[in-house]
Amino acid sequence: MVEKVYVTYNDVHKLCQEAAPQMLSTLQPQLMIAIGGGGYVPARILRSFLKQPGTPNIPIQAIGLSLYEQLPVSDADSGVVEEIGTRVTRTQWLDFTSLGGMENLVGKRILIVDEVDDTRTTLEYAVKELQKDVEEVSKKLGRESEKTEFSIFVLHNKDKQKKGILPADAIDDSRYIAARTVGDVWICYPWEATDIDEHDKLAAEQKNKTATA
Amino acid sequence: MVEKVYVTYNDVHKLCQEAAPQMLSTLQPQLMIAIGGGGYVPARILRSFLKQPGTPNIPIQAIGLSLYEQLPVSDADSGVVEEIGTRVTRTQWLDFTSLGGMENLVGKRILIVDEVDDTRTTLEYAVKELQKDVEEVSKKLGRESEKTEFSIFVLHNKDKQKKGILPADAIDDSRYIAARTVGDVWICYPWEATDIDEHDKLAAEQKNKTATA
Repeated sequence: MVEKVYVTYNDVHKLCQEAAPQMLSTLQPQLMIAIGGGGYVPARILRSFLKQPGTPNIPIQAIGLSLYEQLPVSDADSGVVEEIGTRVTRTQWLDFTSLGGMENLVGKRILIVDEVDDTRTTLEYAVKELQKDVEEVSKKLGRESEKTEFSIFVLHNKDKQKKGILPADAIDDSRYIAARTVGDVWICYPWEATDIDEHDKLAAEQKNKTATA
Repeated sequence: MVEKVYVTYNDVHKLCQEAAPQMLSTLQPQLMIAIGGGGYVPARILRSFLKQPGTPNIPIQAIGLSLYEQLPVSDADSGVVEEIGTRVTRTQWLDFTSLGGMENLVGKRILIVDEVDDTRTTLEYAVKELQKDVEEVSKKLGRESEKTEFSIFVLHNKDKQKKGILPADAIDDSRYIAARTVGDVWICYPWEATDIDEHDKLAAEQKNKTATA
């Protein structure tokens, strides 16, 4: 049986708070891209902690990505080989018409935010597609010399065999921040809880157990 | 001094949970539009409670709207008259290229989600601009006969003089859900808290006071 790990809202809040100083000192993001729905909550919280006095909020662009849901359940057993990337569907992509056009991606320090790095498939898709967009726009504008920097923040990285691979030229270790690295567990995020009081109780019991173990 | 009201994450979670059954029975939304940043958290939580067994998640499109931040602080006193709508700036708008094009707005039941209805300026802007988009696309496609229905969900509506007016043909009372109606107070949402434990303590003290008053 897969172990369940219960994460409370306040845990999520504190994970963002804890990670923010490092981001501000090293990555200095100018734009966040939240992968929805899981990235919405951490991105909104992060925005508070990345806010610098006297400067406006860092803008958030949301994109919607989901792993294709209609796969046969037995797919790991059936020996079906899938190409990485083909399972990701877009439900929303960037809109830069509102921010003066896609050229606003070029030369920026962009932080991609999601809740969990599980198989890495979604993150690989996001980084590669964003790179393509930037490259295309840079060429069109003759601004290839400007470096656009991507970085990633997730609440949890699962320490497991990954299906997706992040492009090494874009995301080295210093550009990848996971607030926590966990085993291949089932992470129960609070926004999925049908009984949030029970959820918090289970989370507290887990913390007590770990503390006394 | 303006009264501060402290709202915890679990309060937000329960407000969404409480409102969901009514939405499912009357509004039956097929698409959510989250107004960011404040709408991100309630929209993500709502998605869990609007999920019906055996059907996919309701897609969320995020839009970014913010009231123009550089206004003179004393603007109410200085007698400067502002036109409604001019203060709202878009940081992100819909992207329907990913969902097969803007025609997917037409004929849908669309729930607009934000955290608070304060002056109503942002909500007026959102509804009117979305109506315009739908009208334009419907005409182009010859699908004017299909009715697109908008509705609104906010966590809190402030009972005060509103600057924005919701188009009566689109949003009647049955299409406007506020989980709570409050006075013209300062609502402290948890995602803005720098000390979430202190925030929760203050929220608990307020609840005790109300209970014993």
